Amino acid sequence: MTTRDRIRDAGAQMFRRNGYTGTGVKQVAAAAGAQLGSLYHFFPGGKEQLVEEVIRTSGPLYGDLVYAILDPYEDLETAITDAFALAAQDLAASDYADACPIATIALEVASTNDHLRQATADVFTDWISHGAVLFVRHGLDKPTARRLTIAMIAALEGAFVLARALRDPEPLHAAGASVATAVRQALDQAADSH
Amino acid sequence: MTTRDRIRDAGAQMFRRNGYTGTGVKQVAAAAGAQLGSLYHFFPGGKEQLVEEVIRTSGPLYGDLVYAILDPYEDLETAITDAFALAAQDLAASDYADACPIATIALEVASTNDHLRQATADVFTDWISHGAVLFVRHGLDKPTARRLTIAMIAALEGAFVLARALRDPEPLHAAGASVATAVRQALDQAADSH
Repeated sequence: MTTRDRIRDAGAQMFRRNGYTGTGVKQVAAAAGAQLGSLYHFFPGGKEQLVEEVIRTSGPLYGDLVYAILDPYEDLETAITDAFALAAQDLAASDYADACPIATIALEVASTNDHLRQATADVFTDWISHGAVLFVRHGLDKPTARRLTIAMIAALEGAFVLARALRDPEPLHAAGASVATAVRQALDQAADSH
Repeated sequence: MTTRDRIRDAGAQMFRRNGYTGTGVKQVAAAAGAQLGSLYHFFPGGKEQLVEEVIRTSGPLYGDLVYAILDPYEDLETAITDAFALAAQDLAASDYADACPIATIALEVASTNDHLRQATADVFTDWISHGAVLFVRHGLDKPTARRLTIAMIAALEGAFVLARALRDPEPLHAAGASVATAVRQALDQAADSH
């Protein structure tokens, strides 16, 4: 792995766990086993450039990971239930540290840095488009697919907030079950209308 | 309003919008029209004491606000749809700044400050208990009431993340509709079983 990649990955993990404001470039360089000068060599814009790259790389990767889990299922309700259960398991395994790589940053910058807010918005927009295509493939019409994809992403993000605070996987199971029920109902309605 | 209350309220607004790490005590004192010495007089523990008080006062107040909106409705599905629509309206009216008062803090401290994490967990635990009582009153059994209350809170928190990033109320409507559907189905099942 190149020094640049090591710095980016160390930044990704620290931003995810400690937030953007709570992470210093010195800590990132140290965690990457790199000199601070090296960090500024690869990221002349410093922490802001580093976090933007993390948002624009870790964000899409995380979306791809979630959709890779959902993709092979024939039944979308089961897919969602299982994906939330897997997220619960992974979160607990990381001692409630590693959830969505961009959520903490998104909340921190939403009202303070419009450039970075836009980067988080671009990631969420892509997640929504990607999910809507998957949901349409299961037989939902486009507006319903979009609405339920957004509901699924919101449920996952919010469940992460609660699960990390409570150090308990229960919110992921509860949120997953609720979205799965709404998806089941929409699938049944779509099947009835054919 | 006392100087102490002005400092607490200024802190609450800044933590909500800019996060815990992104807020300095000097800024809070200035926003409250108080001296920094005055802030330390009332909050000898500095920023950590101030944020804990904000979590433990603004958090319960926000829960009370949400449940005061839900409380008068005869139909829980309509209550939830309307409450999410109102949250969407309020968020847009604050230029996407004022959402949940403790979510940003909760994510920032989840892996970095266990004392403050516990304060956010206590607030979420109370919100869940309060909501479960309301949901039981509408005819749901206790485990279902708890599960759907958690799903509702997760949906609201996650929709705030997306709506603030996207500067768009759509996620609140989508998340509210999904939870309302799950609640409708549970209410119908409860009615059928009687």
